[in-house]
Amino acid sequence: MNETSSQPKPLTIGVFDSGFGGLTVLRALLPLIPHAHYIYLGDTARLPYGSKSRETIARYAVSSSRFLLDQGADILVIACNTATALALPEIQAAAHPIPVFGVIQPGAEAALPASRNGANDANDKKCHPERSAKREVEGPAVHTAGAPNVLVLATTATVQSHAYLQALTALGLPATEKACPLLVPLVEEGWIDHPVTAEVLRIYLLEALAEAPNATTLLLGCTHYPLLKPLIETTLRNLRHPMHIIDSAQATAQAVASHLPPSSTNQPTTCNFYATDSIEKFQHLGTNFLGQPLNHVHHIDLGG
Amino acid sequence: MNETSSQPKPLTIGVFDSGFGGLTVLRALLPLIPHAHYIYLGDTARLPYGSKSRETIARYAVSSSRFLLDQGADILVIACNTATALALPEIQAAAHPIPVFGVIQPGAEAALPASRNGANDANDKKCHPERSAKREVEGPAVHTAGAPNVLVLATTATVQSHAYLQALTALGLPATEKACPLLVPLVEEGWIDHPVTAEVLRIYLLEALAEAPNATTLLLGCTHYPLLKPLIETTLRNLRHPMHIIDSAQATAQAVASHLPPSSTNQPTTCNFYATDSIEKFQHLGTNFLGQPLNHVHHIDLGG
Repeated sequence: MNETSSQPKPLTIGVFDSGFGGLTVLRALLPLIPHAHYIYLGDTARLPYGSKSRETIARYAVSSSRFLLDQGADILVIACNTATALALPEIQAAAHPIPVFGVIQPGAEAALPASRNGANDANDKKCHPERSAKREVEGPAVHTAGAPNVLVLATTATVQSHAYLQALTALGLPATEKACPLLVPLVEEGWIDHPVTAEVLRIYLLEALAEAPNATTLLLGCTHYPLLKPLIETTLRNLRHPMHIIDSAQATAQAVASHLPPSSTNQPTTCNFYATDSIEKFQHLGTNFLGQPLNHVHHIDLGG
Repeated sequence: MNETSSQPKPLTIGVFDSGFGGLTVLRALLPLIPHAHYIYLGDTARLPYGSKSRETIARYAVSSSRFLLDQGADILVIACNTATALALPEIQAAAHPIPVFGVIQPGAEAALPASRNGANDANDKKCHPERSAKREVEGPAVHTAGAPNVLVLATTATVQSHAYLQALTALGLPATEKACPLLVPLVEEGWIDHPVTAEVLRIYLLEALAEAPNATTLLLGCTHYPLLKPLIETTLRNLRHPMHIIDSAQATAQAVASHLPPSSTNQPTTCNFYATDSIEKFQHLGTNFLGQPLNHVHHIDLGG
């Protein structure tokens, strides 16, 4: 008992998303930073952010971040591409001096080694090794030879912000962004491995690859999309355009972990969840995203 | 000039929806009640309501209704199935003594004559006259003989409220409700006549007809769905299950018109539009729903 009570206070990490998608970031954080207390807020009463304007998103994201700070967060992870893309400066200003991590910069940086190595390396190591040597001669390939290019799939608001384009361009990576507004509703319908979702992905990817035939790296710029990764891989294979797939949720968790000192406690991981809409729906849908049951979900009202 | 200035003040009709769908109700109102001033509010910063909880929807709907009352509305039309289904009593209490019309009761009442006449009459007069005489012998029909039944397509929240089921049951009509969460995103993507939308409709209708094989009347319980009416008719024809289609937007406009006295003014129709999110997006998307360009769109902030 005494040993427990004399343990230093664990790091408290506030994780914020408009809804459930950010749970894929939390899922990636848990094994990397185990001895921490997590507070996750899903602003489910006001989701989705992805179709809304910059001003509205910034207002919602700042009020959500303030809640996490009031709960004692030592650092904030904005596990929402849309909020990061459109409101990171506003959130950082509201949180100062608490450090704030977004998902855009880690995602862009994770694209760097894959894209620099070019298409063949990426294909060899990650996505479809069986096709790397043969793909140049396998019929009417959509891609062409040329400079590597990053294709970013994201919500409408994230694409319109061009936050990924700017971050990737600053790293010297040519990039193309593609808005995929139907993917979030399809994931939330649970059609993770469904022919309709495969067809929607095929249409979106064909449209995107027509604009970016040299793309060798695919950046999943929405935290819902990791649940579609197997179907995206199958679709790319069917399109004869295998790519290196970057998951910004995983990249963000690694970036956060790399910025923290080694833990000074061995306390077990604890998680508290807050949602601005129905607790039941959050528990039900969230389980898919977190990969484990959600306990301790509380309802909060952020106004509006 | 004197004649104009001595005209009585036109009736001011407040029309509210969470977004753009209610513009299909306004579109139906304009020819039926031409000498009126319309104030339309789309609570686009907080849409969609269809996936949220009753408490959240009621809070949003009441604050939106109060805005329309503050703007001088003489009557309110809640042109949103979800808000009607989950928050009509709260809105009526907030608006008292201003009359409030929802979309559920008019939609249910419009199903009455069609369903009482049975499938053949409905098919004869409305949907697919060419099939009415032959449909009993045209191969593996999904339906079976029996009592007429109403099938309601709506959002998840509307279905979970069972507001249509209760209204139809009170009218003596057996009913089945089917949640169709992908239809709103597909309409907003502009995929009104798209193979993916046709496939999603086919899946939803097959699932629904497995539960309600006797259904002869299809009630469109979401104001986005009228834009899909041609595709729904085609899908039903392909499923060999033609139905009488009731559009609750049209039914609501007729119910409002029938409760008003003849106009005492011949002033032209005027419309003011308010949106809680981006004006540009509202003008762009709204044009499809209203069937004409939207002028005079103003941004308002309802908090949140």
